[in-house]
Amino acid sequence: MTTLISYEHYQQRINNFLAEKLDNLSINDPKLLEAMRYGLLIGGKRMRPYLAYITGEAISVDLNDIDAVAGSLECIHAYSLLHDDLPAMDDDDLRRGKPTCHKAFDEATAILAGDALQTLAFDILANHQFSTIHKVSSTPVQLKLVQQLVRAAGYQGMCGGQALDLAATNKSISLAELEVLHSLKTGALLEAAVLMPAECSELVTAEHKLILSQYAQLIGLAYQVQDDIIDLTSTEEELGKPVGSDVAANKSTYPALLGLQGAQDKAENLLQQALQALTRLPYNTQSLANFATFIVKRSR
Amino acid sequence: MTTLISYEHYQQRINNFLAEKLDNLSINDPKLLEAMRYGLLIGGKRMRPYLAYITGEAISVDLNDIDAVAGSLECIHAYSLLHDDLPAMDDDDLRRGKPTCHKAFDEATAILAGDALQTLAFDILANHQFSTIHKVSSTPVQLKLVQQLVRAAGYQGMCGGQALDLAATNKSISLAELEVLHSLKTGALLEAAVLMPAECSELVTAEHKLILSQYAQLIGLAYQVQDDIIDLTSTEEELGKPVGSDVAANKSTYPALLGLQGAQDKAENLLQQALQALTRLPYNTQSLANFATFIVKRSR
Repeated sequence: MTTLISYEHYQQRINNFLAEKLDNLSINDPKLLEAMRYGLLIGGKRMRPYLAYITGEAISVDLNDIDAVAGSLECIHAYSLLHDDLPAMDDDDLRRGKPTCHKAFDEATAILAGDALQTLAFDILANHQFSTIHKVSSTPVQLKLVQQLVRAAGYQGMCGGQALDLAATNKSISLAELEVLHSLKTGALLEAAVLMPAECSELVTAEHKLILSQYAQLIGLAYQVQDDIIDLTSTEEELGKPVGSDVAANKSTYPALLGLQGAQDKAENLLQQALQALTRLPYNTQSLANFATFIVKRSR
Repeated sequence: MTTLISYEHYQQRINNFLAEKLDNLSINDPKLLEAMRYGLLIGGKRMRPYLAYITGEAISVDLNDIDAVAGSLECIHAYSLLHDDLPAMDDDDLRRGKPTCHKAFDEATAILAGDALQTLAFDILANHQFSTIHKVSSTPVQLKLVQQLVRAAGYQGMCGGQALDLAATNKSISLAELEVLHSLKTGALLEAAVLMPAECSELVTAEHKLILSQYAQLIGLAYQVQDDIIDLTSTEEELGKPVGSDVAANKSTYPALLGLQGAQDKAENLLQQALQALTRLPYNTQSLANFATFIVKRSR
């Protein structure tokens, strides 16, 4: 498996940051707080935070600012998993090899913990002490970050993508429809993970933002193609959840539409396009290139 | 029943504002958008928007700015109703005399519509064109509004209150615990409905914000006491949902803790305290006084 220098370092960094956020909440309802902690801190690859950190590194943004970006993205991602796993949605019992939140607690608590984690995402952006390098004040940057997160998370982003995903269950959809679905459900947050760091810098041009955005959309799609491949070819132990669950749930997948070899070719092609996009940026993009490769070469 | 001058006017204003927000969303998933519209626009007293508008009037804030405040508050309120009504939570089939969202659509869609409405609340605050009376730029005001909404809606506010409410079901709790529960579950958003307009003005002193906040907490509590009374004394037709549902759900209520007369006395006492608080403000607070009276005298 491809390894990434600094992945564990940034995982630790974001885990510490998020743990501190939860520790700073006063205890009103201990069970709800515990469920939020369970959803946010038990396991998780921290892909979105990692992407935000290495983008921040590449474009020379103070990593203190990226903490807020990464933390808010992970809160949105975690809330979406709590809700997606619910019986009324994907009805999953396991997540990351452990009982899903509604199994470990109960459905009502999992719903509320997801709700509170979404609010926490905006809390982090609005209340973080941003670095003092911003001219005069960081408020315009913070407001732009809220705007970016809104677009990535809401009806026009991740949440709308999940609705399309539910609508596509038990139904065959076209490759084009599958791509729209994934560009919203997964791509929007990954795109935010490169664009939000770019908002923290005054030096990233509109053209470079566009290239970063293309890179993120390409690896987002590659991630989903690879996810579908892994779901078919992995073992339950590697996956931390039952294999073949997409097929069992009657979801449209890339291997189903393209065949396994076709899906593998597509993942490789998306990777090459993502690497190509990076060559048009005037930064050290080695970590971003490694991350793209990691996404397609991972086996879990 | 006490009537309020301008209530219908502001109901219409906020309904138009919210309808326009939904109309401006591109159609990704028509069903999800329809469920958001159902949750946000079908009925509802618009108490929080109304309170925001009359506060804005009292302290002379441009009502264009209050549109965003009122719209964001109503989105949070609507999302909380969609989730609270779910089978895993209060399991209500009727809301405002109509099928609840998960009955009219399905559970997954009601969960997602709630999620998307929460994001929409922050969308509205972050993307609204605020009035130009703010010095230099409205961004500091907008960021403060996001901070206020986060505090009112999240774990330390409404969402935490709902968790306490669930925890209190089938359990007897003290009057003090019931007040904490309601100050979070209902009080926090009503407090935001007076404090967010105050953030839009540069003239409201810290002392006056404190008085507005006390007023809002008092009427929030009075609202809950009166709600419990109505749940016991109203008819299903007046209520738009089955009467006695609190008792049926084994929830602690003010009439249960204080007796019906005791609860009525408490509501009256809270009203007098709220009216008293208003006399310490140097504004025309007639509408705020009428609203407090309306809350305690209403029969549905």
